[in-house]
Amino acid sequence: MRVELKDLAPLLLKKERVNGDIDPAVFTDVLRGGKAANERRKQLVKVVEQHPVLSDRDIVYRNHSERYLFGLKKAFHHVKLVQDGSYSKEEQSILLNALGEQVPLDLHREMFIPTIENQGTDEQRAKWLPLATTYRIIGAYAQTELGHGSNVQGIETVATFDKATQEFIVNSPTLTSRKWWPGGLGKTATHAIVIARLFLDDKDVGVQSFIVQVRSLEDHKPLPGIKVRDIGPKIGFNAVDNGDCSFQNVRIPRENMLMRYAKVLPDGSFVQPKSDKLVYLTMVQVRAGLIKALGERLAAATTITTRFSAARIQGRKPNGKREFQVLDYQNQQHALFPLIAIAYASQFAGSVVLKMHDTALKSITSGSSGFGAKLAELHAVSSGLKAWISDKATEGVEICRRLCGGHGFSQSSNLGHLFAEIAGSNTFEGTSDVLVQQHARYLLASLPSPAASTQFLNDAKKFNDNELRCNAKKSEDFGNFSVLLEAFRVRATRSLVSLAELMKSTKNDCNACMILMTKSSIAHTELILLENFVLAVEKLFSGPEKQALSDLASLLGVWLITKSLGDFRQHDYLSSSQVDLVFKQLMRLLPIIRKNCVLLTDAWDFTDFELNSTIGPYDGDIYRALVKRVGDEPLNQSEVTVGYDEYLKPLLQSGL
Amino acid sequence: MRVELKDLAPLLLKKERVNGDIDPAVFTDVLRGGKAANERRKQLVKVVEQHPVLSDRDIVYRNHSERYLFGLKKAFHHVKLVQDGSYSKEEQSILLNALGEQVPLDLHREMFIPTIENQGTDEQRAKWLPLATTYRIIGAYAQTELGHGSNVQGIETVATFDKATQEFIVNSPTLTSRKWWPGGLGKTATHAIVIARLFLDDKDVGVQSFIVQVRSLEDHKPLPGIKVRDIGPKIGFNAVDNGDCSFQNVRIPRENMLMRYAKVLPDGSFVQPKSDKLVYLTMVQVRAGLIKALGERLAAATTITTRFSAARIQGRKPNGKREFQVLDYQNQQHALFPLIAIAYASQFAGSVVLKMHDTALKSITSGSSGFGAKLAELHAVSSGLKAWISDKATEGVEICRRLCGGHGFSQSSNLGHLFAEIAGSNTFEGTSDVLVQQHARYLLASLPSPAASTQFLNDAKKFNDNELRCNAKKSEDFGNFSVLLEAFRVRATRSLVSLAELMKSTKNDCNACMILMTKSSIAHTELILLENFVLAVEKLFSGPEKQALSDLASLLGVWLITKSLGDFRQHDYLSSSQVDLVFKQLMRLLPIIRKNCVLLTDAWDFTDFELNSTIGPYDGDIYRALVKRVGDEPLNQSEVTVGYDEYLKPLLQSGL
Repeated sequence: MRVELKDLAPLLLKKERVNGDIDPAVFTDVLRGGKAANERRKQLVKVVEQHPVLSDRDIVYRNHSERYLFGLKKAFHHVKLVQDGSYSKEEQSILLNALGEQVPLDLHREMFIPTIENQGTDEQRAKWLPLATTYRIIGAYAQTELGHGSNVQGIETVATFDKATQEFIVNSPTLTSRKWWPGGLGKTATHAIVIARLFLDDKDVGVQSFIVQVRSLEDHKPLPGIKVRDIGPKIGFNAVDNGDCSFQNVRIPRENMLMRYAKVLPDGSFVQPKSDKLVYLTMVQVRAGLIKALGERLAAATTITTRFSAARIQGRKPNGKREFQVLDYQNQQHALFPLIAIAYASQFAGSVVLKMHDTALKSITSGSSGFGAKLAELHAVSSGLKAWISDKATEGVEICRRLCGGHGFSQSSNLGHLFAEIAGSNTFEGTSDVLVQQHARYLLASLPSPAASTQFLNDAKKFNDNELRCNAKKSEDFGNFSVLLEAFRVRATRSLVSLAELMKSTKNDCNACMILMTKSSIAHTELILLENFVLAVEKLFSGPEKQALSDLASLLGVWLITKSLGDFRQHDYLSSSQVDLVFKQLMRLLPIIRKNCVLLTDAWDFTDFELNSTIGPYDGDIYRALVKRVGDEPLNQSEVTVGYDEYLKPLLQSGL
Repeated sequence: MRVELKDLAPLLLKKERVNGDIDPAVFTDVLRGGKAANERRKQLVKVVEQHPVLSDRDIVYRNHSERYLFGLKKAFHHVKLVQDGSYSKEEQSILLNALGEQVPLDLHREMFIPTIENQGTDEQRAKWLPLATTYRIIGAYAQTELGHGSNVQGIETVATFDKATQEFIVNSPTLTSRKWWPGGLGKTATHAIVIARLFLDDKDVGVQSFIVQVRSLEDHKPLPGIKVRDIGPKIGFNAVDNGDCSFQNVRIPRENMLMRYAKVLPDGSFVQPKSDKLVYLTMVQVRAGLIKALGERLAAATTITTRFSAARIQGRKPNGKREFQVLDYQNQQHALFPLIAIAYASQFAGSVVLKMHDTALKSITSGSSGFGAKLAELHAVSSGLKAWISDKATEGVEICRRLCGGHGFSQSSNLGHLFAEIAGSNTFEGTSDVLVQQHARYLLASLPSPAASTQFLNDAKKFNDNELRCNAKKSEDFGNFSVLLEAFRVRATRSLVSLAELMKSTKNDCNACMILMTKSSIAHTELILLENFVLAVEKLFSGPEKQALSDLASLLGVWLITKSLGDFRQHDYLSSSQVDLVFKQLMRLLPIIRKNCVLLTDAWDFTDFELNSTIGPYDGDIYRALVKRVGDEPLNQSEVTVGYDEYLKPLLQSGL
């Protein structure tokens, strides 16, 4: 008897797991920071899954207003859940992460409180933190304005000091000085840290941070002089209210300027900050977290897509007997498997950056010298990585959506939501165009004196020698890490040297060098990703897992080469026939990776609740899940459609 | 006095128009099919803009149910508007296009009626078309199923002929045979053309089309044996209901099978179709229209982005005096200008395909021989183009969104909506993976005997000679079309020859050759795009317009080369130093294109109503538009937010 498709789908996925030869748990440990951490993560996800409100998965049926209201409800219940103190700060974040969307109080936790912790004096911390952590006030972080985002120096909001009353007067002098985008400010926050240009006796002393109360603690109405609204629907983050806020002669006490670094004394004199390097360190930490988080979103998308591709059949085989699994198609493998590798790579690199951060933090707190250089390196590397992964993760989730065809286009696949929630990452926490420039400038500076992450520049002369040739002889040589890594080092060196030359000939006109700066940043970032992937492989004991991870590293390497062939062919470092070998290795690896691809994505150990996808459940029962989910669509709650009497009956029954 | 940003923005955009040296109207004529056609288009858009219902622009505030209901309302008012017959069929489409979203009756017009026209007998047309065109019935086209999309041969819905009653019995024998996705079927349609596998005396005679009534014309309830629902929210198309529909012993009269080609006689015997080539011709026409439509969407996105980039300043110049316009940045130009070129190119290529279609149609109706070959060529070329442009337009709109930073992420930019509405194009009307294979197979067949669009293959031997070298000596040589075109012909030839070799060595294992097939399709498509762009340039009289279009063609060419450098470097057709020249030409062209980029996008002559973007108005007054639009957000209708009493007050006032 013929097996029905609905029953075939789970069988096909199961078959993939049987055919694989690796134990996904080995990778789970690596990807999730060990068995205990992973178990705890899953327990916390379970808490959310079993919660009557937090388990909500009907996001896709709601418009922005409805999502905001429900977001508020979730934020409230999250606070209720954690208020007894039984969850650590990190555990609270895992709980929030399991909601699958940002909610209105997130920026209170992620930006308002940390900024006071980092930039507030001891007195300020003593005053504001107890209020904030118990939600007696709710804060936002108001930096971006209608007219200026990336360029903080362009900020137009003004604070002037009134010595007589010992107050700052905050004003929005122009339309474009309105604070625009701050999360939670639109409808939720009672307070905001407002970044404004400070004037002392008509003298501009630069941009500073001020705590401004925006809404009454009695009735939540905006305070006099303050106009505040929500900016409207966005591509993603629609459960969050983002603020449009302006100030007219709003007075705040002198003590409301955050004065850990810069200070304004009662007599109106200004005390310059000694060092604000710690501010950068926080930024780096956020970015490192983001690198891992974006990699995880891509991991979720590849897990869904791999399972769907295994369970879905489409198109008869030439022998006419069976249909292809979508996973059989070379194009599908070619598009999907490198994304699996990128998700792994970003996890490895993100962990390394976090470790670099922790080391730097230690060296600062212990007062050891040289931490400035460490910090600069960390800042550069994390900038390049963040720009790269935000590009690749966004693009990758969208590729996954396409790879799932029509079912990917359905919101029940969750791929559209995953995309929408990370689509802003190319802009927030540092616009990619700015980050790659900062990274490239660091690289230029380290060309004469390499740091740990730019050690390869010690061999710059060798790598930049136009006579140097790759020594690969056969396709498998591109599975040899020393061959691969040399190629990436050569490319990174040469793009940097070209950049240095162009900078020189343009007299440091950064804008005229921007494309090359971007290239240099990418070249170094891809080298770092590959280096750390290789390190991760080397840490594993031998066995099929080591082989599988090694193949994935090689796939990442050769795939990246094919994406930038021009770079690697420059001065014939790779010859035309070696490029053929690269392609051959890529094609050779695809069926090899395919053998374990389901297990490689299983290794992330996402629960079905986390993936929230009709087409990506662990058991592959995609067709029943799709049909079941249709029952939730509000339009299906009535047999005869809404609008029938007004718009359809008149057409159908009157005739034209 | 310092000019405020809000006033500076319009001035900056105006300055761009003053600095340009072309008359955009010259291009408008080319892009919009002449002055008269363009004026009529704008009149029709004005009709929609001034209509109390059709002018609606609040799509972004609605969830799927709300959008469907409003979509129904719009569809109803569109019918009312055009019912007096004063608008031609084409004008009705322009009116619909101006709505900015698909509505529930679109598939009735675009698929149900044309299918009856093309596949119905004269009697069937006489019976059904008057009912359909007056909306006394509303139809859907039900082909795709839960389990099968691209592969029509996998369809599981069954129709069996009952000689005794002269009826077909339609059944959904499996869960996965449910019709899934048909537009308008979910909640709206009364009838559907159902594609089902036909059984005659237990013999499977293949897939046929049947008209099945699905809902009562009295009360709109689903008829007995029919279960029909909406499949739920999607990435785009949320004003349309898409169907999930199953049949249990639904009987329809023999006359309801569309019998223009295949027939079932009353005695149950089957008459094979003579030729169904005309069915392909309709498909090609739809695809050609899609190529132009997708190009237009990309054109809208590039218009918005170019204006925003001109009006927006961000980041102080090294001399510290002024800020850069975002349009000044090399990365912005490098990302944006090729998209402007692609939008133009797709318009030129789409027009050519439409002309090929019209010629083919004439040769068929006049009964001239050789139309089979013409049709095959047309099918192949349009397949490759559709796959290419659906990829590039989707990706391009998303790139535009990123280029507008935070404001691009706001739905009021309209870039998110533009993306969502075309994101399905890689799947619908032919999945790209299937199309490129069909295209590549045609190319393989035409290698020994080239057709008009593959004439370059007459020189295959020369182009495939590994000793052949590009003769460019300086960067400007890549502005020479014969140099550029040779490069693309060499590349197209070589990728095809490599494919032919791989096909031979794999014994025609298409799947093992899929990546190369894709490459070959892309190589040929890019050649066609460039060839037709060059033809469009050559048609213009001399003057600055000709120069500007010529520069745009050159930009497209060199940019495409840089995207696939490996191909062009193969066997050193381009040397390493020539690649440097390509980059140099690309960088050289960016400021040249910049001079006219605003006028080049103005040339599309989109009205502000059509663009529907706060950040892309003609006058550049982006900041006032953004602030004004915020007033429409439903959350802003109350000063104290929804949810305050339930979720915020308890936190703020009780303390934890």
